[in-house]
Amino acid sequence: MAQQQGITMTVVGLGLIGGSFSLALQEAGAVSHVIGVDAQPEHAALALSLGIAHEIAPLAEACARSQAVVVAVPVDRCLAVLEAALGAVPAGALVMDMGSTKHLLCQQLAAHPKRGQYVAAHPMAGTEYSGPAAAFPGLFQGKKVVVCEKGLSHDEALTQALSLFQAIGMKVSFMDAKSHDRHAAYISHLSHITSFTLGLAVLEVEKDESRILDMAGSGFASTVRLAKSSPAMWRPIFLQNKTNMLEALDQYAQQLQRFRQALETADGEALDRLMREANAIGRIL
Amino acid sequence: MAQQQGITMTVVGLGLIGGSFSLALQEAGAVSHVIGVDAQPEHAALALSLGIAHEIAPLAEACARSQAVVVAVPVDRCLAVLEAALGAVPAGALVMDMGSTKHLLCQQLAAHPKRGQYVAAHPMAGTEYSGPAAAFPGLFQGKKVVVCEKGLSHDEALTQALSLFQAIGMKVSFMDAKSHDRHAAYISHLSHITSFTLGLAVLEVEKDESRILDMAGSGFASTVRLAKSSPAMWRPIFLQNKTNMLEALDQYAQQLQRFRQALETADGEALDRLMREANAIGRIL
Repeated sequence: MAQQQGITMTVVGLGLIGGSFSLALQEAGAVSHVIGVDAQPEHAALALSLGIAHEIAPLAEACARSQAVVVAVPVDRCLAVLEAALGAVPAGALVMDMGSTKHLLCQQLAAHPKRGQYVAAHPMAGTEYSGPAAAFPGLFQGKKVVVCEKGLSHDEALTQALSLFQAIGMKVSFMDAKSHDRHAAYISHLSHITSFTLGLAVLEVEKDESRILDMAGSGFASTVRLAKSSPAMWRPIFLQNKTNMLEALDQYAQQLQRFRQALETADGEALDRLMREANAIGRIL
Repeated sequence: MAQQQGITMTVVGLGLIGGSFSLALQEAGAVSHVIGVDAQPEHAALALSLGIAHEIAPLAEACARSQAVVVAVPVDRCLAVLEAALGAVPAGALVMDMGSTKHLLCQQLAAHPKRGQYVAAHPMAGTEYSGPAAAFPGLFQGKKVVVCEKGLSHDEALTQALSLFQAIGMKVSFMDAKSHDRHAAYISHLSHITSFTLGLAVLEVEKDESRILDMAGSGFASTVRLAKSSPAMWRPIFLQNKTNMLEALDQYAQQLQRFRQALETADGEALDRLMREANAIGRIL
C-alpha cells in the first residue's frame, strides 16, 4: 500500500451522520481512504457518487482493512454491527458508534472481549434531513460530542477517536452512559417529540394547507422543524430511552399545565413569571 | 416642504417590528422621513442613533405631520395608541397596527368615526429578540402579512398599506379578524408556548448549565429559540387570544398524550405512524 497521510476508515451507514463525518474528515485530511458499507444499495451508490466513500465493500472485508470503523446506523441496529465490526477489525483499530442512546449499548458491550477497541460516542449534531444527499462536511464544525464510559476504552482507541473529533472542530465532553441517556432525553430527544407534537396539533386543525402557508413565520418553522425528522432513526431512540423519555414528557406536561392554568385564570403575572423563567435559556444558549 | 419621493411616516413603538419596518421602507425608498414615538426615552434615543427614526416627537404632533402611522406596540396598548393616532392624523392618512391579535381590536374600532383610515395588519415575521437594536431591514423580505376586515378600510388606506408591504417584499393575504385569531393561535402563538415550556422543563431538571451547553445541538436550539421571547409582548397576546389558546393547548396536550401512550406501551408502529403523520408538515413548509 502506498504511503498515506490519513488512515483508511470504514463508515457503516452512509446517511446524514456517517456521510457528513466522512466528508469532514476527508476535508481535514484526517482520512485518506473511506470504505462505505450500507444495507441499501441505492444509498451506497449515491454515497459513492457524492464522494462520501471511495469504494463499497461488505462489512467484514471493509473492517479488516481499516484503522477506524465508524458506525452510524439507527440505534436498534448498532449492537449487531458493532459486534461484527469488532470481530473483523485488526488489533489496535478503533470501532466507534454515533448513536443517540448509549446506556443499553454500553451494557451489551461491557463484557465484549474487544471492548477496549470500542469508543461510545454521540455527536450533538444533525438536521431534520436524512440519507447521503443530506450529508455535508460542515455539520460537525464547532459542535459538541459526548464520549461515554471512556475508562473502558483502551488509550489507543480513545486517543484516535479524540483526534478524529478534534480534526473536524468538535468539542468533546465525557459522561457515564446512564447519565448521558437521561440528559439526552431532556436536551435532545424531548425537543423532537415536542416538535412532532406541534406538527400533529397544527395539521389536525389546519386542514387547509394554504392557511398554514399564509401564516407560518420563521418562529413556527424553527419550532416545528424537527417534525420532519426520520421515523426510522427516532423510533428506536425513543424506545431505547423510554424510561427517561416518559419522565421528560411528564415534566414537560407539568410545565405546560402551569401555562394553561395561568392562561385559564387570566393571571398575567403568572404568565410573566413563567416566561421570564423560560427566558433564562437565553443566558445559556 | 420640499418635494420628496417617499412619504413622511410615524412609527409608534421603535422595537424589533416598528424599527425593522422603518428601516425596510427607507431602504426601499418608500418613505423619506420617519418620525419616531416611543414611551421609553432610551429606546427613542437608540432608534434615532440607528437611523430608525429621523426625529422623535410626541404622538399627536407626529401623527398630524404624517401620511402614514404605523403602530407596533404590545397589543394591550394598541387601542389607546390607535385612537389617539386616528384623532390626530390628517384626512386621508393611513393608520395601521402590526399586532398579533386582531379580533378584539377590530371590534373596539368597528364604530370609530375614522375606521376607514385604519388597516388591521399582522406581519408574520419576528425573531426572539426585541428593542430597537434587534431591528434589521431584511426582517420582512419574503414574509407573509395578514390584513383583516379589509372591507372596513377605505380603498385609499388599503391601497397605501398594500403598497408599503409590497415595497418591502411582503405577500399579503386577507382574513376576517376572528378567523385570524384562531389560525394565529395554532400557527403562531402555540409554538411560542411549546417553546417556553420546553425551556421550563429543561431548566427545571438540568440545574447544571454546563450540561446543557455540552449537549445542546442545533435541534434543541431551534426548538427552544422562541423561549427567549419578550414577556411584555407575549403576555397580552396570550390573554387577548385566551379562548383560542386554550383550545390549541388542549389539542396539543391531546397529541402529546398519543405520543406518551405509544411510548409507554412500547408500540413502535404507533410511534412510526405519529412521526409519519407529523412529517407531512415538511410537504407544506
